[in-house]
Amino acid sequence: MTAAPSARPKALLFDVYGTCVDWRTAIVAAGRALGHELGRDDVDWEAFADLWRAKYVEGLAANPRRERHSGWRTLDVLHREALDEVLSDLGLDGIPATRLTELNDTWRRADPWPDVPSGLARLRESHVVAPLSNGHIALQVELARHGGLTWDAIVGAEIAWAYKPQPEAFLRSVEALGLLPAEAMLVTAHNVDGRNARRLGLRTALVIRSTQFGPGQTTDLEDEHGADFVAHDLHDLDTQLCRAYGERAIPA
Amino acid sequence: MTAAPSARPKALLFDVYGTCVDWRTAIVAAGRALGHELGRDDVDWEAFADLWRAKYVEGLAANPRRERHSGWRTLDVLHREALDEVLSDLGLDGIPATRLTELNDTWRRADPWPDVPSGLARLRESHVVAPLSNGHIALQVELARHGGLTWDAIVGAEIAWAYKPQPEAFLRSVEALGLLPAEAMLVTAHNVDGRNARRLGLRTALVIRSTQFGPGQTTDLEDEHGADFVAHDLHDLDTQLCRAYGERAIPA
Repeated sequence: MTAAPSARPKALLFDVYGTCVDWRTAIVAAGRALGHELGRDDVDWEAFADLWRAKYVEGLAANPRRERHSGWRTLDVLHREALDEVLSDLGLDGIPATRLTELNDTWRRADPWPDVPSGLARLRESHVVAPLSNGHIALQVELARHGGLTWDAIVGAEIAWAYKPQPEAFLRSVEALGLLPAEAMLVTAHNVDGRNARRLGLRTALVIRSTQFGPGQTTDLEDEHGADFVAHDLHDLDTQLCRAYGERAIPA
Repeated sequence: MTAAPSARPKALLFDVYGTCVDWRTAIVAAGRALGHELGRDDVDWEAFADLWRAKYVEGLAANPRRERHSGWRTLDVLHREALDEVLSDLGLDGIPATRLTELNDTWRRADPWPDVPSGLARLRESHVVAPLSNGHIALQVELARHGGLTWDAIVGAEIAWAYKPQPEAFLRSVEALGLLPAEAMLVTAHNVDGRNARRLGLRTALVIRSTQFGPGQTTDLEDEHGADFVAHDLHDLDTQLCRAYGERAIPA
């Protein structure tokens, strides 16, 4: 853990999937329910969840930065394309379209990790808080209302018309909040996300989510990118920030 | 008042200046304080506030819809350009640059009308709430934190890269929340704003702010555009919405 810079960050920008919400548990549960309904209890729905996420990440590379809104494809669309590929790979055909839409919408209703609603509220007392995610505004609003999260604004991919890890997704989000990169801190459970943010001048906090990739998780269990803070949940992060920068105060 | 459509709107989108915050009182007070400091108690700071707002509105016409972020000029910039013109017209020269910036930043710290923090919280129980204003994201975050307002997202000019009354400012904001125009209701204290929104298919609620333009206000004292609801404050609006659509419920 490197030494914390002297000034409290003005904004905390949050990765959402894995950091704030437990997407994998939600997807596995939705898959199992669908499988049971279809008589396909034989499918490994944990593997299905991991494949879906992997296909989505793979597909991101095909989404260049846009110069204008037209042609922008939301995370719903990217998730749905990845879903169709995974189902095809697994030979799961003939699922009714409405059920596929419901399954895809699971990403919009994943539950937060238990510490997030109250921890985020604590952190918001002293920092502007906003998701910096690949989820679009409508999706983030639904996730936040579902989980009882309160954001000051929603930034991220739709503000930038660029998906992480493209630099614009980070830089345009910081700019939209009227800040310089060094005034913002990315809170993320992914070292790769933190590494990308640090290269662009943001500070980072790594939150260890040791089951975000399932019970056998072997990655992102410790800091590998030089995070300013390493925390086991958002309450711990708030405590560490108070220790580093003094008691809570509304930033100027 | 026209008959209310049968379904509760999913989102309430708020005009901010005049509807949620009392910009005029803030600008008059800031102007008077500056005038006193400069030995210019002779200036009519109420007239100054009205001129500043009028110059800004006039200047909006020079801001076409942008196709990309580069070249976007924020409300801070538009307010500052209008301020420079007004000060020049009034022969108020030689004000230190830091004081001009502070004066301009008054728009970022105007107090809400007294009913807004609690009324907005009530309305948020059953609707997605977001500002649909010409204020950019950074400004809206500051105004909201200053006034204790909680939004689900910030939409408006910076999302659309278009200023009201341009249609894109309304339509892109609705779209960013994943809604059709008829699923959204603009809450505004300005008939002209409501009229523009209705033309585009949004529903509207007019909130009567009888001193938003000062003690001698003669406009926007009644509905002139066919609003779905006419309310004297946000609590009254919530009560009327509950009467029309049933008790509060989180929309699907």
